[in-house]
Amino acid sequence: MSNTGATANPTLDPNLKSWAPGANDEGTEFPIQNLPWCVFARKADAHIGRHTHEDGSVHEHSHINPLFGVAIGTGILDLHMLLEAGELESVFDDEEMNAISHAFEDTCLNSLAELGPAVTSKLRRAASEYLREGGTSGGGGQQARRLRTKVIVPMNEALLLPPMHVGNYTDFYASMHHATNVGAMFRPDNALLPNYKHVPIGYHGRASSLVVSGNDIRRPKGQQSPPEDGSSGPVFGPCKMLDYELEVGAFIGRGNEMGEPIGIADARQYIFGFCLLNDWSARDIQKWEYQPLGPFLAKNFASSISPFVVSLEALEPFRCEGSVRPAGDPEPMAYLNDKTDRASGGFDVTLEVLIATAKMREAKVAPSRVSIGNLKDLYWTFSQFVAHHTVNGCNLQPGDLLGSGTVSGADPASRGCLLELTWDGIDPATKKPKPRKPVQLPGGETRTFLQDGDEVIFRAWCERPGFRRIGFGECRGVILAAK
Amino acid sequence: MSNTGATANPTLDPNLKSWAPGANDEGTEFPIQNLPWCVFARKADAHIGRHTHEDGSVHEHSHINPLFGVAIGTGILDLHMLLEAGELESVFDDEEMNAISHAFEDTCLNSLAELGPAVTSKLRRAASEYLREGGTSGGGGQQARRLRTKVIVPMNEALLLPPMHVGNYTDFYASMHHATNVGAMFRPDNALLPNYKHVPIGYHGRASSLVVSGNDIRRPKGQQSPPEDGSSGPVFGPCKMLDYELEVGAFIGRGNEMGEPIGIADARQYIFGFCLLNDWSARDIQKWEYQPLGPFLAKNFASSISPFVVSLEALEPFRCEGSVRPAGDPEPMAYLNDKTDRASGGFDVTLEVLIATAKMREAKVAPSRVSIGNLKDLYWTFSQFVAHHTVNGCNLQPGDLLGSGTVSGADPASRGCLLELTWDGIDPATKKPKPRKPVQLPGGETRTFLQDGDEVIFRAWCERPGFRRIGFGECRGVILAAK
Repeated sequence: MSNTGATANPTLDPNLKSWAPGANDEGTEFPIQNLPWCVFARKADAHIGRHTHEDGSVHEHSHINPLFGVAIGTGILDLHMLLEAGELESVFDDEEMNAISHAFEDTCLNSLAELGPAVTSKLRRAASEYLREGGTSGGGGQQARRLRTKVIVPMNEALLLPPMHVGNYTDFYASMHHATNVGAMFRPDNALLPNYKHVPIGYHGRASSLVVSGNDIRRPKGQQSPPEDGSSGPVFGPCKMLDYELEVGAFIGRGNEMGEPIGIADARQYIFGFCLLNDWSARDIQKWEYQPLGPFLAKNFASSISPFVVSLEALEPFRCEGSVRPAGDPEPMAYLNDKTDRASGGFDVTLEVLIATAKMREAKVAPSRVSIGNLKDLYWTFSQFVAHHTVNGCNLQPGDLLGSGTVSGADPASRGCLLELTWDGIDPATKKPKPRKPVQLPGGETRTFLQDGDEVIFRAWCERPGFRRIGFGECRGVILAAK
Repeated sequence: MSNTGATANPTLDPNLKSWAPGANDEGTEFPIQNLPWCVFARKADAHIGRHTHEDGSVHEHSHINPLFGVAIGTGILDLHMLLEAGELESVFDDEEMNAISHAFEDTCLNSLAELGPAVTSKLRRAASEYLREGGTSGGGGQQARRLRTKVIVPMNEALLLPPMHVGNYTDFYASMHHATNVGAMFRPDNALLPNYKHVPIGYHGRASSLVVSGNDIRRPKGQQSPPEDGSSGPVFGPCKMLDYELEVGAFIGRGNEMGEPIGIADARQYIFGFCLLNDWSARDIQKWEYQPLGPFLAKNFASSISPFVVSLEALEPFRCEGSVRPAGDPEPMAYLNDKTDRASGGFDVTLEVLIATAKMREAKVAPSRVSIGNLKDLYWTFSQFVAHHTVNGCNLQPGDLLGSGTVSGADPASRGCLLELTWDGIDPATKKPKPRKPVQLPGGETRTFLQDGDEVIFRAWCERPGFRRIGFGECRGVILAAK
């Protein structure tokens, strides 16, 4: 592994320490080397009210002032306050300062991300300089001290908001293990389709129903296949095979013009950062509806994203060198083949899924891990997603979300959804699937698919000797009963 | 056929005449009974410039002031000017007036459409009252006459802009004839899948690459299947099977909250109006990429929409009574089954596709019709699209576009894309597809798929004895060579 790119960037220096609370703790997700972007409101300023009218109708209203921040230790650095205090003026020229001030009027990070990596890297570096021990926050005596006490908002005093407005959401299918496992259920003799190793398979998802971590997820209703005994036609009701899908999403920063493909070597310049993504899936609805045009209602009722956007820079030390594809596999076509740098490698990010049932939460039992995997197991890279998505001239726009697809590895313990985790293969005698093997949870509970009240929690982190641990924060959602 | 709904609405009275130029002409698409919404700029006010910098780089800039209008005769009624002249004040109460003034600050019709049919119907009626002979435009003497001369913008002095900002684009597959024809190419023994008559099949399209009629379409490049002789792997290059797809799109007005399905009987209240939609398709790219998750790069390079939004009200006289599905077919499930009103019927809209090649345009030969069909041939209705899309809790938002899918009828002359039109079936001897049968064009030209320079033109209209003819305007696009 080469760390050239990493060590060239002083914000990644593992010896950097910050004066911000909790930032130097061993286990923190948010050391000064991470600084993931977020949008938040100060709870003290947020006004969320309910008003009952004379006719009995209830009106909910909220006044929220969205602020941009970077997570640090146990809090968030308020970039708006930093800007207003004049702390960024020495870093940017007038033109950049105007652009940033304008971007800070947006309610999400789209306008900032659109300024491209030259500006956002500089802003990240300025935040790092301000936060580091012995950095720029020290000058100015009493006034500077006063700013330091106010500019870090403790996590429990912050309301985390959607970081980006997602105009278009595309979901890829980049884990060959996932594609093979799922393919085997539907096509036992032909699990992996002939296009898989040539085409980064993707499809369009629903942007309107993306919600940020912490939002409850209502169990969907829908059509399901006719019973196997043929006693009736298709049936309608609440989904009985509700599942999560463990994914990582990339947010687009700058976009491209329609008709102008993005070359593979430039692709990383268009990625603003990464989040965790839960592409909730109704497997019984999916099975009945998905042919011939792909999943629709099985997916578009909701997808959840984590509130923090981890930058490419923070992940730089955790790149894997060399191609992600096994020796002997076909070479990617030229437009997908980056031989010039480490973009052809994946990222070494550990991914964990936990479940906490309602009973477990009541009994104050900690969430239980159901799988652990790694992002480096993907067959295709995010740079390849960008190059492929635009090779036909399709335009990406700031805030667009590119999902990895479910991340599963070769190890059965790393399977990124219950559809795969509880699959027990085909019975050779009957040629039919064996009964599903439920996941075991504390207190004797088991799950084949999700039950009402279950909370699903995704976590992700990077660790490597010689570097600080980088965390992604959490992506959570509790299942509500169907209406 | 019952016309109760139609005649109850005075704006549809076939005897209404307008003082606006061309509105009473026999063949006009835009009589006073139509009044489709649009967004436009006055060319005289629009400033579009090119500036060459010293370093040779070219900077394009434009200052366009988007205005809302309704098409009438040979022009567009400028609703902004009508509003500013105070002509709407007697129609709306203060609250509505505030909402409309606010909506008119938007650059597209989303905010207006979001106000719902109660407000937009009133606005449509006010426009009708102003435009009709003997209507409200007559009062006020000289000032009123002056307004009348300025408030209608001739079409050739208007720049037509995208009518809505489309946040989410969903494409359905509602023509059983299309599904059967295409299915037969891929699965000769199993053309129509078992879910088709139960599920209004749909999938998510790409919103970012939607363009308004008149924009050129760049031929996409992409991966295509390996040659049949197996001499190589998949190949890369410009699409060789470029196609159009004739569709009608519905724009959502008001949206629904996540988790709150829209009932079939209410569905029409959520539809703002209709446009023509060309879902350009790269068939060779599609064939290689579409399994298992559906079309992606084959579709998302561009889709074109017509600039006029024809309201549900204008189409009211052209509803067909009774269910669209043949006797003996399964009943739609309850959430898709509207027995209470005529929403179960389709719309009688004639749909025409024309092609003008570069050679034809040069020789001043008129565009040549390649197909003519009818919207009533759809197996599923737009109300069913809305009910199905939201039954799982998925939220629709103002400006969302729901495409019908390619509209083909039983008559081969009504097939809505070249993939179907030039298909000649399977050779019973070889069990392989027969060579495609090209479409004949004037001057001896033929087309199996689209060539560079071809212009594709969609037109649509409604005609019924006792009613004025209603037109949709055109949806046009010229194919540019791949880069």
